[in-house]
Amino acid sequence: MEHGVVIGLLGLGTVGSGVIQIVNEHQQELKHQVGCGITIGKVLVRDKDKYRESQIDQDQLTVYAEEVLNDPDIDVVIEVMGGVQQAREYILQALNNKKHVVTANKDLMALYGAELLKVAADNGCDLFYEASVAGGIPVIRGVSEGLSADRITQMMGIVNGTTNYILTKMEQDGRDYEEVLKEAQELGFAESDPTSDVEGLDAARKMAILATLGFSMNVDLEDVIVRGITTVTTEDMEYCKQLGYTLKLIGLAKRTEGRVELTVQPMLLPNSHPLAAVQDEYNAVYVYGEAVGETMFYGPGAGSLPTATAVVSDLVTVVKNLRLGVSGRTIHSPLHIKELKTDEEVDSKYFLRLQVRDETGTFDALTSLFAKEDVSFEKLLQWPLDEEEPVAEVVIITHTTNRAAYERIYKELENMDVVLDVKSSYRVEGGQV
Amino acid sequence: MEHGVVIGLLGLGTVGSGVIQIVNEHQQELKHQVGCGITIGKVLVRDKDKYRESQIDQDQLTVYAEEVLNDPDIDVVIEVMGGVQQAREYILQALNNKKHVVTANKDLMALYGAELLKVAADNGCDLFYEASVAGGIPVIRGVSEGLSADRITQMMGIVNGTTNYILTKMEQDGRDYEEVLKEAQELGFAESDPTSDVEGLDAARKMAILATLGFSMNVDLEDVIVRGITTVTTEDMEYCKQLGYTLKLIGLAKRTEGRVELTVQPMLLPNSHPLAAVQDEYNAVYVYGEAVGETMFYGPGAGSLPTATAVVSDLVTVVKNLRLGVSGRTIHSPLHIKELKTDEEVDSKYFLRLQVRDETGTFDALTSLFAKEDVSFEKLLQWPLDEEEPVAEVVIITHTTNRAAYERIYKELENMDVVLDVKSSYRVEGGQV
Repeated sequence: MEHGVVIGLLGLGTVGSGVIQIVNEHQQELKHQVGCGITIGKVLVRDKDKYRESQIDQDQLTVYAEEVLNDPDIDVVIEVMGGVQQAREYILQALNNKKHVVTANKDLMALYGAELLKVAADNGCDLFYEASVAGGIPVIRGVSEGLSADRITQMMGIVNGTTNYILTKMEQDGRDYEEVLKEAQELGFAESDPTSDVEGLDAARKMAILATLGFSMNVDLEDVIVRGITTVTTEDMEYCKQLGYTLKLIGLAKRTEGRVELTVQPMLLPNSHPLAAVQDEYNAVYVYGEAVGETMFYGPGAGSLPTATAVVSDLVTVVKNLRLGVSGRTIHSPLHIKELKTDEEVDSKYFLRLQVRDETGTFDALTSLFAKEDVSFEKLLQWPLDEEEPVAEVVIITHTTNRAAYERIYKELENMDVVLDVKSSYRVEGGQV
Repeated sequence: MEHGVVIGLLGLGTVGSGVIQIVNEHQQELKHQVGCGITIGKVLVRDKDKYRESQIDQDQLTVYAEEVLNDPDIDVVIEVMGGVQQAREYILQALNNKKHVVTANKDLMALYGAELLKVAADNGCDLFYEASVAGGIPVIRGVSEGLSADRITQMMGIVNGTTNYILTKMEQDGRDYEEVLKEAQELGFAESDPTSDVEGLDAARKMAILATLGFSMNVDLEDVIVRGITTVTTEDMEYCKQLGYTLKLIGLAKRTEGRVELTVQPMLLPNSHPLAAVQDEYNAVYVYGEAVGETMFYGPGAGSLPTATAVVSDLVTVVKNLRLGVSGRTIHSPLHIKELKTDEEVDSKYFLRLQVRDETGTFDALTSLFAKEDVSFEKLLQWPLDEEEPVAEVVIITHTTNRAAYERIYKELENMDVVLDVKSSYRVEGGQV
């Protein structure tokens, strides 16, 4: 290692070029920290011609993965190509060739994290993935090391910048979802196919990674119940505001006595909650530990240099471990067996917006329904809608109830004569207003 | 180490008893992480009788430091006794006896951090101090590892819970400093002698520790220019609110081209700044890195269990390093030589509140003074005070200027005929409103 550590890059997109930039520009600081130079060896790209003007020499580029994965000079492979199956194969090959790996790939880690970490440990290799969750925010480190002494019982994340940007603009400007989405696409904050973001899938992947780590149990992506933001309306937001809440797409992971719940969905948070102030494309992860109480990690969730910062900070740890001779020794198998909560065990408050017949008996019917399920109202608003028919809008925030009871209520509401429409329904989290 | 790792405790106050509680209650999780048991050996206290009812056996208690520091069975010494000289001697002795050390002592680390870290490295021992800054928030780790790839150019900290509590209550309730301080003392949020908190000394110590780490240069406590909150008035707060700002006690560490500025003082932050939402006794550290941009670490700055969480997370790292055989290898001497900014190099905006004669020529005199120093106004409010004399109150927010020019202006204002009183003056940080 006297020649320093050589890294191979898989992919040279936004994050990859950020990594090269940081490694080149911060040579002095990096060397000071790890005690040796770090140089870029080979870089896998799809099309060499695309990078004629880039900061990397043409002869470092290759279109053959083997030239990176089998190069004996390369000590560390950085995977920033994205995608799942191909990336998985490459990383497995790298690990089996005793190369340490840093990845920014949330899709991959959410689906195959357990497998890859095991292969890494078996090969005495490091595998780090700080950049896979919340870009530049060192939250993986915060959870796995900073709070290592604590028992984490809850994590709430704004872990998708696109949806937070959309919801922020809807709330601030009173503009509707479609319009803001279009603007976000034009500004580059949303993909031309925004499905993975707006349907909550991207956030679900990050929450699966966080929960696996924070709860020390193998959480699968399919354990996360997911609902996106496409049906959120400006009316909903207006009511939230009136009641002292903000509507955010929240990834929630809760643990009670060893049983866990995982979901991504739009939720109401009281304005006093630390996450409520997280605006625009910023990300934040709120972590509740039995001993530490409330903590939050805030920062940019994406972007070339922020994400590359996380990749290179992992690289620093890899190189330190390499030089100390302790690579691969810090990977743990989970302590706990996963047990998911049942619908009866998932506790929450709910926000519910209905349109009802504005006539005698309506309220009685509603209150009987809720009383039957032993669910009481924390807040209630009702006023007439400006329509020809006698129609009233009713907004309810319930006290804490379990999901099973709430879903029975919801189903009955849809079938009740006096209820013309169930306009919207969201969970309410984050304590009292 | 087959018998597990044995720790010795110096001090059994709030934090010490929290450490014992976490080590006892989280045995399973800790063992899973470090691969061996962790047990409490000896605990140094002043008076054994005081702890008859505590969770620790009487025969583990000792009033002789040597019984902890010289005990060959003890691998790690945790210093939670506070104070400076005695604690320094004990830690030096522990390190020279090849015992690893975890400390929560900000006073000590701010004054003797460089010395202690050198002695630790010379002895091949670890010395960690996460709990010394911002209690339960893993910000030392965030700065030293999570952002290790980046070049940090600015840190702003709300790192004193007492003063943040006082300022929050003053702002929310419009109550004055003395009244809120008294309440804070009754509630246990402020000491009976609050000097170290309210004069900004406690925050200065934490900023010296953070800056040393984040800028990789040996910052001394006396480099921090300190001003407390004792002269902050509810009028000031009211004007801040009108102008879209919040007044907070901010520890600021700024680096521009290798030259640094360090100060703790009440500052105006725009309400949109992430730190502006940090309420009550909570702490937060905002870190700006060239690559990552804005990040923030938020959480409890004090308290038995939160602080103990940070101590035990350090302990986990110590024990991991011990088992991996790499103790003391991660301590670095600073990369850069400290160079402080001159008054001409310290740039800031300023908030200034004056009472002036409400007569022709006043404004002309004011504007000439500012123009002479090439300082322009970003915001300006003026209105008559309800007094017998014709007196007006003027509130100015300047554009960015250097401290030297501002201080010349300030001095002249105090001597101007048309200026009856300079009521208050604060820096304005954190970008545009």
